[in-house]
Amino acid sequence: MYFEHNEKTKELQARLTAFMEEHVYPNETRYEEELNENGRWEVSTLMEELKQKAKKEGLWNLFLPKSEYGEGLTNVEYAPLAEIMGRSLIGPEVFNCNAPDTGNMEVLLHYGNQEQKDKWLVPLLNGEIRSCFTMTEPHVASSDATNIEGNIVRDGDHYVINGRKWWTTNGGDKRTKIAIFMGKTDLTAPKHEQQSMVLVPMDTPGITIKRTLSVFGYDHAPTGHAEIIFENVRVPVSNILWDEGKGFAIAQGRLGPGRIHHCMRAIGAAERALELMCNRVSERMTFGERLADRGVIQEWIANSRIEIEQARLLTLQAAYKMDKEGKKAARKEIAMIKVAVPEVALKVIDRAIQAFGAAGVCEDFPLASHWANSRTLRLVDGPDEVHRRDIARLELTQYQN
Amino acid sequence: MYFEHNEKTKELQARLTAFMEEHVYPNETRYEEELNENGRWEVSTLMEELKQKAKKEGLWNLFLPKSEYGEGLTNVEYAPLAEIMGRSLIGPEVFNCNAPDTGNMEVLLHYGNQEQKDKWLVPLLNGEIRSCFTMTEPHVASSDATNIEGNIVRDGDHYVINGRKWWTTNGGDKRTKIAIFMGKTDLTAPKHEQQSMVLVPMDTPGITIKRTLSVFGYDHAPTGHAEIIFENVRVPVSNILWDEGKGFAIAQGRLGPGRIHHCMRAIGAAERALELMCNRVSERMTFGERLADRGVIQEWIANSRIEIEQARLLTLQAAYKMDKEGKKAARKEIAMIKVAVPEVALKVIDRAIQAFGAAGVCEDFPLASHWANSRTLRLVDGPDEVHRRDIARLELTQYQN
Amino acid sequence: MYFEHNEKTKELQARLTAFMEEHVYPNETRYEEELNENGRWEVSTLMEELKQKAKKEGLWNLFLPKSEYGEGLTNVEYAPLAEIMGRSLIGPEVFNCNAPDTGNMEVLLHYGNQEQKDKWLVPLLNGEIRSCFTMTEPHVASSDATNIEGNIVRDGDHYVINGRKWWTTNGGDKRTKIAIFMGKTDLTAPKHEQQSMVLVPMDTPGITIKRTLSVFGYDHAPTGHAEIIFENVRVPVSNILWDEGKGFAIAQGRLGPGRIHHCMRAIGAAERALELMCNRVSERMTFGERLADRGVIQEWIANSRIEIEQARLLTLQAAYKMDKEGKKAARKEIAMIKVAVPEVALKVIDRAIQAFGAAGVCEDFPLASHWANSRTLRLVDGPDEVHRRDIARLELTQYQN
Amino acid sequence: MYFEHNEKTKELQARLTAFMEEHVYPNETRYEEELNENGRWEVSTLMEELKQKAKKEGLWNLFLPKSEYGEGLTNVEYAPLAEIMGRSLIGPEVFNCNAPDTGNMEVLLHYGNQEQKDKWLVPLLNGEIRSCFTMTEPHVASSDATNIEGNIVRDGDHYVINGRKWWTTNGGDKRTKIAIFMGKTDLTAPKHEQQSMVLVPMDTPGITIKRTLSVFGYDHAPTGHAEIIFENVRVPVSNILWDEGKGFAIAQGRLGPGRIHHCMRAIGAAERALELMCNRVSERMTFGERLADRGVIQEWIANSRIEIEQARLLTLQAAYKMDKEGKKAARKEIAMIKVAVPEVALKVIDRAIQAFGAAGVCEDFPLASHWANSRTLRLVDGPDEVHRRDIARLELTQYQN
Repeated sequence: MYFEHNEKTKELQARLTAFMEEHVYPNETRYEEELNENGRWEVSTLMEELKQKAKKEGLWNLFLPKSEYGEGLTNVEYAPLAEIMGRSLIGPEVFNCNAPDTGNMEVLLHYGNQEQKDKWLVPLLNGEIRSCFTMTEPHVASSDATNIEGNIVRDGDHYVINGRKWWTTNGGDKRTKIAIFMGKTDLTAPKHEQQSMVLVPMDTPGITIKRTLSVFGYDHAPTGHAEIIFENVRVPVSNILWDEGKGFAIAQGRLGPGRIHHCMRAIGAAERALELMCNRVSERMTFGERLADRGVIQEWIANSRIEIEQARLLTLQAAYKMDKEGKKAARKEIAMIKVAVPEVALKVIDRAIQAFGAAGVCEDFPLASHWANSRTLRLVDGPDEVHRRDIARLELTQYQN
Repeated sequence: MYFEHNEKTKELQARLTAFMEEHVYPNETRYEEELNENGRWEVSTLMEELKQKAKKEGLWNLFLPKSEYGEGLTNVEYAPLAEIMGRSLIGPEVFNCNAPDTGNMEVLLHYGNQEQKDKWLVPLLNGEIRSCFTMTEPHVASSDATNIEGNIVRDGDHYVINGRKWWTTNGGDKRTKIAIFMGKTDLTAPKHEQQSMVLVPMDTPGITIKRTLSVFGYDHAPTGHAEIIFENVRVPVSNILWDEGKGFAIAQGRLGPGRIHHCMRAIGAAERALELMCNRVSERMTFGERLADRGVIQEWIANSRIEIEQARLLTLQAAYKMDKEGKKAARKEIAMIKVAVPEVALKVIDRAIQAFGAAGVCEDFPLASHWANSRTLRLVDGPDEVHRRDIARLELTQYQN
Repeated sequence: MYFEHNEKTKELQARLTAFMEEHVYPNETRYEEELNENGRWEVSTLMEELKQKAKKEGLWNLFLPKSEYGEGLTNVEYAPLAEIMGRSLIGPEVFNCNAPDTGNMEVLLHYGNQEQKDKWLVPLLNGEIRSCFTMTEPHVASSDATNIEGNIVRDGDHYVINGRKWWTTNGGDKRTKIAIFMGKTDLTAPKHEQQSMVLVPMDTPGITIKRTLSVFGYDHAPTGHAEIIFENVRVPVSNILWDEGKGFAIAQGRLGPGRIHHCMRAIGAAERALELMCNRVSERMTFGERLADRGVIQEWIANSRIEIEQARLLTLQAAYKMDKEGKKAARKEIAMIKVAVPEVALKVIDRAIQAFGAAGVCEDFPLASHWANSRTLRLVDGPDEVHRRDIARLELTQYQN
Repeated sequence: MYFEHNEKTKELQARLTAFMEEHVYPNETRYEEELNENGRWEVSTLMEELKQKAKKEGLWNLFLPKSEYGEGLTNVEYAPLAEIMGRSLIGPEVFNCNAPDTGNMEVLLHYGNQEQKDKWLVPLLNGEIRSCFTMTEPHVASSDATNIEGNIVRDGDHYVINGRKWWTTNGGDKRTKIAIFMGKTDLTAPKHEQQSMVLVPMDTPGITIKRTLSVFGYDHAPTGHAEIIFENVRVPVSNILWDEGKGFAIAQGRLGPGRIHHCMRAIGAAERALELMCNRVSERMTFGERLADRGVIQEWIANSRIEIEQARLLTLQAAYKMDKEGKKAARKEIAMIKVAVPEVALKVIDRAIQAFGAAGVCEDFPLASHWANSRTLRLVDGPDEVHRRDIARLELTQYQN
């Protein structure tokens, strides 16, 4: 048992923290103002500038595992960095470490052929384009991935794609050039081999961005979550990822690191909320007493600290296990953090909101927006209930005979 | 003990429910679309039409207690009606029963002189204008009302008003013609006699609507919550409500019914969420089973039903006590519902969101928006913590010697 | 809606409260001491004296509905009285209103023939004997009553009874003369008509009291919860209650009022815990401050008050519905209180324990013992989970098509 | 970050687990039966036999840090072993690792002089005698240690000791030969230098064991928790530990490892409860379905697993910090586990009880007894509330200026 990060990680933590303080936090409000002034769905000049700065300082693509594209960090090394980025909602993109691009890049890295990598992975790694991942559908319960109805039919050298997808993050972004489409190629195959993933350039005819969806009132512009209709969209068969019938397997492989990243960012959000709360209650007075001296507020702070520490350790342990034994072996650990961490983030941020009073629910502080974001984590990549069921089943295995 | 509503109430419940089903629910989405099309801060034609319909059917000003302006309902009679209206976020305004107009009308009714009533109360009762109540300030913790810094200085026949207020609901609405300003007239008076309330027409020079604030990501247009700056705003001394030094007393009197209304509407929101959830889980399948047949979902439904029933009974009991013994005697009961009800609404709506999956957090269902609204109820009219402290102190009175 | 008890009830509340203060509370410790001195399973002289006093004052058999044996109270009238009795663990027996004797008396009243009534009901009503109800079995999950394995086989003019029962309250009591045995008479009948109930005198050969079970560490002497073995126990066929195959129906009928009584007593326990806590924190100092002035303690008190009020109202509403529409119509309401009330009692008592420090877990205060008792209420008469499932199903009925 | 135990620890874990399975679990019931047969306050022959076996296998005094008395384990190494012992309530004593003897041995090791060590520490290490620690007093809130009223007055070569202590674990045990008495020697000294600790042989005249206290009905015989009266008890001044005025400092030093031990044992109790629950639900059927296949039960299992993992990691981290930076630096971490771990244990065990039905609350399974034990952990060594206040204050330090 050794509860410290290695030197390499500590050094990156320090540099990232300094960058956040110098460049990210002070620009959060400016970023929103720019969107309001220039049009919420226009490309943000400020963001592109921040990206250049981060790239120059080598704080770029830190999520990337060891590969032909660079050194790479382990999950245990990356986790505390994702936490720091996650303290700001605009943080991850600044470092080219935002979902779903990171997951898509991993998919291309592991399952893309060289041509696909050259065409899509390289510009993504450079932060020149954005990508989206179209899986969730409005008409079926997506918590059961086998429900998917989108279909991919082979027609000579092409696939013809039809389907209605929603909650496609980055779907509203003008920089998004490529979609990974998940659909069924073979309805007669075994349940988990019916799905395939196909690369679909966003300018292919037949794609309609119907609308973007709000999250508790937030539009999450300029990336957004889109509802997209695919009508007879034709792409060459060479656009298949890995092979037909591999869609479910790719999706599973994509999820492990993605969930760890989500969780670490959520811990960052919780830490920031706790920090904001501590600052606020140290200043405000009611009925002749500092809020920080009130027992109820102290309980909020203590419980928040206790919960965050536990959530972080659990996440690091999951990262450790995934590094050492692989995604499959770490399945229970990953499911556990997926349930535990968003709940902690929600509790901590909610307490901070309460401590801020009405100021906490509005745009003046990154609390309500972080809360809304964390709330979606209880749904994306499988709702809590499905993960709890998996955990229980894995736990019960040893008892059944 | 008698757990049924009287005939008059039952009849109104039935008519209101029918109206909601015919006119309100089907127009919720259209209302938002109209705002998006015509400009979010423009007066909604649809709303004005709905108001006319409600007025014609006599479902109008039901909140109004017995007075020179009509028959009036008791709090126990009005409570179940407020619940029905509260099922839709656009419901209360349709029936001219929305906050803060109801509270302002009550203030004018009880503390306004005849001239003030003629000028402001009558058009408010007619739904011709809107009003706002400016109390909360950004720089002090408003949970302690004696913190208020806005000031009202007498200068001959006028008051000169200065202050910065925020969270002024209706402040962004073009139809809002009158503000009740709460400020201090005498810093040397006893703590609870320093405040006064003055009527300030919104077109008085010196008033600047600085911005409207979002709640989570919702702008709550076209009424909105404004930050308003009052700079040397001059109004005749006749605009005082009741008398100098009575501001705190008026504020207290205003809160009792207001809190009951808030709570009953929140129960309506919870009921609607439960209804939506039951509908949804009766239709959706995952892993070969209806969601409605899953134990975890059944627990959500059962707990929601249990919590809602209790919250409603507690609120009705508070209304009963207020009707029978008055606001002051019902102080503990009102504080109790203020703590208990929003918490129930938040829990129930949150479960519904979870049952809906991603659909639950967006604009397709009135869940996320109702959740955000209910979340603010833990802050407005005093945060939970202040009410809990009051309850405990009232409880402990009998033990101290 | 009318939230007050009638005069008759108020008068009984006052008299019961006075009796509790004069005779019951002051004797709680003496009662335990007497048991420790004279033998824990000996009949308590003190209890018999208290019973005589209560009988003399007419505070006797108040649970009894209107019948040939007297006037009787409605459930709404009796509920607040059960609450008062339930404040002390020795309270209910003093007034001949303790489980399971009350339930057994109701069964005899409704389903017994005249001979059975004369022989068993009359002495029970007089408090001369005790009775037990043998249903739960160690080897099957009793939450599903159809699991029962005890059997009753007709042999000429007799039934031959075999089975192993446990958690038979009163089973350890020397005054217990009669058992109601629930078993199966016909394994081929429809699922809910296989069971019958038979009266079995405790001195019938073949009955062995194997042991009494503890609840947490409490033996609940001298009544106790027994494990009882029935081996070829023979009773005349005239000992059947109602008829063969009616066991399940009788059990269902028995449960409605029983659950309301349990819940009201649990509310009494919670009220007493809150009272003890308020007293304690008003006296104790830590770090220079009264516990009663600490925010955290105040939250405990406020939340306790809020929860108790809601639980009581829900229970009274269930009683109201049962009085007016009958047990079956009130099925959902009864299930709701069965889930809600014990949880509230446990929370309130647990807070009181925490406020008392180590003193709270020992015999010096009736907190730990009341907690243990309330904890069993989440299991007896069906565990929470079964009730929640029932509530959800009843709720969902209106949505299915 | 390294999430595995070293080889030495793993080897001890394996041996301890084997010992528990062979000797401890199978004897839990026999131990209770022996007490019931031979007298609950008599020395248990079975326990003494088990102790000899553990000693022979070298599973003895594992709690002991590196010292003149042996090699010693670090806290991180010992923690998982304490967890295994804590799975059984009779486990820790078998390995001479039970509270309060471990804490007392540490006190003697660190603050005792050679004569005190020879006389008391050596027989304690040998398991020949037991010891007690008399600090808590019935008449003051012990959560504030400066409240203590017991006094120690110097009279020539002797101290004269007076005071009333309770919750003195081991106080009822015939093998207990020595008490550490905490009292005040100088009421005029600074607040935290008024207290001293003195060794008091249990056979000194003036000591009266007034009674033993129950914990939720459990007597915890034959060790017990005693109320002890000290009346003019005289001991030589050489019996002082360290020096006059050092009592508070010794108490603080005693608490760090003690709290880690408590927490690790509580995690063991939780693990055992989860194991028992999984076993039970894998066997029992209700309404035609295995309990293990029900969603609600699966949530209990999943949440239990999540909570236990987090609690264990937090405890190991606290142990790590204490090993590396010392007790004082680890103050926040130790306070955090003191709050977090008992809560987890209580939740997990409570779920197990619920899954077992009535069987869960009685003596047939080690659930109710473990629950009661864990409940006291929220009070001993300071109630949760005091620890939360400490955590918050330490957290807030960095924000105040």
